[in-house]
Amino acid sequence: MALPAALRAHFAGKRVLITGGLGFLGSSLALELVDSGANVLVVDALLPNQGGNRFNLNPAEGRVRINIADIRNRNSMRVLVQEQDFLFNCSASLSHTGSMDDPFTDLENNCQGHLSLLEACRLENRALKIVLAATRSQYGPALRLPVEEDHPQRPRDVNGIHHIASEAYHLLYQQSYGIRVAVLRLPNLYGPRQQMRHGQQGFLNWFMRRALDNESLSLFGDGAPLRDFNYVDDAVAALLLAAANPAADGEVFNLGCPEPLTVRAIAERIVHAAGRGRVEMVPYPTSAQRVEVGDFYCDYSKIRRMLGWEPVVDFDEGLRRTLDYYRANREQYWTTALDLEP
Amino acid sequence: MALPAALRAHFAGKRVLITGGLGFLGSSLALELVDSGANVLVVDALLPNQGGNRFNLNPAEGRVRINIADIRNRNSMRVLVQEQDFLFNCSASLSHTGSMDDPFTDLENNCQGHLSLLEACRLENRALKIVLAATRSQYGPALRLPVEEDHPQRPRDVNGIHHIASEAYHLLYQQSYGIRVAVLRLPNLYGPRQQMRHGQQGFLNWFMRRALDNESLSLFGDGAPLRDFNYVDDAVAALLLAAANPAADGEVFNLGCPEPLTVRAIAERIVHAAGRGRVEMVPYPTSAQRVEVGDFYCDYSKIRRMLGWEPVVDFDEGLRRTLDYYRANREQYWTTALDLEP
Repeated sequence: MALPAALRAHFAGKRVLITGGLGFLGSSLALELVDSGANVLVVDALLPNQGGNRFNLNPAEGRVRINIADIRNRNSMRVLVQEQDFLFNCSASLSHTGSMDDPFTDLENNCQGHLSLLEACRLENRALKIVLAATRSQYGPALRLPVEEDHPQRPRDVNGIHHIASEAYHLLYQQSYGIRVAVLRLPNLYGPRQQMRHGQQGFLNWFMRRALDNESLSLFGDGAPLRDFNYVDDAVAALLLAAANPAADGEVFNLGCPEPLTVRAIAERIVHAAGRGRVEMVPYPTSAQRVEVGDFYCDYSKIRRMLGWEPVVDFDEGLRRTLDYYRANREQYWTTALDLEP
Repeated sequence: MALPAALRAHFAGKRVLITGGLGFLGSSLALELVDSGANVLVVDALLPNQGGNRFNLNPAEGRVRINIADIRNRNSMRVLVQEQDFLFNCSASLSHTGSMDDPFTDLENNCQGHLSLLEACRLENRALKIVLAATRSQYGPALRLPVEEDHPQRPRDVNGIHHIASEAYHLLYQQSYGIRVAVLRLPNLYGPRQQMRHGQQGFLNWFMRRALDNESLSLFGDGAPLRDFNYVDDAVAALLLAAANPAADGEVFNLGCPEPLTVRAIAERIVHAAGRGRVEMVPYPTSAQRVEVGDFYCDYSKIRRMLGWEPVVDFDEGLRRTLDYYRANREQYWTTALDLEP
């Protein structure tokens, strides 16, 4: 990744804890930090159906510590946050429909887990800085576009409600206990290292799997809703900028991209890039219709202005890199890569 | 209570479930509904340090069913919501400082418990109507006064975050599953039947206990923050109006009073009415300072306009009734009235 040398230097020798560090975003961040000379400790529970995959950190073998633990375990977290300089909280359940089917597990993973982590910091290490990888799904449908950070929040699913709570906990712990916190609300991410076993953590990678398998990419309805998205490296750069810059403390930032596309256009670009697969229209399943928010894309001018972030990987380039990665590593992602069966 | 006859008639013969029904608000509501001819089923867990007290329902003995169960128990709730026409959800943890000391219990009581109740309704009885007794503490500090329903929400404590989540669950279950829901955001309540063992569920009753005991009423700082409040019967009337009127479905309403008072003025009025006690200034404890929101009172014009609600019990009259009640029933409230020791 082409990060500014000064930003990489900021993390050299720093102790960094990454929750969800075997997952898509967490492992991408971990690899970058290891390359920057940081002392990286990855925590992941490898929960069934979540995104953790040990293979993701193979490139850093011997240069990163991996600790299997569940953030809901308060005692483990109290030990693990000690003496860290940074905590990147990349651990979250993301499934919209899954949160409606089982709101209790979503509550545990997102609320109880994040409280456990914050309580550990309060009790053991208030000096570290936290960056939360949050999600824009907490907004619900857009009342105006592009969506700014102070847009009303009325999520269409339990997962969005829990992300509101998680973000509020983080901001409260800065206000009440002085623990520095920055929050990024991420759009759909795509790129290497995301799990490819189901489409519950974002549709872009799932569409890529379907294309690589020469299967149909199913669009609900007419595929007309506009969406924004980021290549994972751009999201990693934003996390690092938010960690390094004190101006981010106590702030919430949208990410986003300059050219939102319809779900249909995204699917067609993927089929074109893969040279396989086909786009298919299907009626909305009830479970998907219920959580559909329509056109949605964010205004990311705040992070551009305050932290100097902009997405640099354009969609065609990002698609190419992602497809290349999965063509080369299909066997690590197509079937379960978990230690335990679900 | 002087409710309109048409409103009372609305509940005659109706099956009504009240969670937290042995508590302050829930029991006051239960007594009113029993007198209106409703078939009332009260659920309460009698959790230590919460407000449940069997004595509260003594006036309705033999005319109300009491079921001891915890709303977090999903199976029990699935049975208990069956065939009910109304569900008044009056079960909540309210302590601001308590939620900071133990955020996990607050999460369980407010989030897991309310999800459990809503899931029970989704699975067993989508035809009932729910009225949620929520709290205005979810707003956090007032950016403008009086506070309207669409005021930004940035609570100062974990309890406020969980009340945001609870309210959002309720509204989501109407949107997703068609379960009718109305939400009241309640201010400080006072009146008969609140627990008097600690001041964690509102300061007005606690001040009354201190006055009746001829002790000092401790004001933090200068006691200058303005507060609004309602006598419990006025809150009960609002719950019933929200239940009876379909215009309330999917809506959120503030309650409030026409003349907010400073905490100091409230304390002085209580000392005057009781003829005992004294007002004392003390420095803010850290735990209280952290959650202090300053002047806070709500605009209640929406519920006045849409449901015709207005508070009718003025403060001096409410104080008189409350003090009379506790003078007569001190032994039921001054020490623990629980079945189990905490």
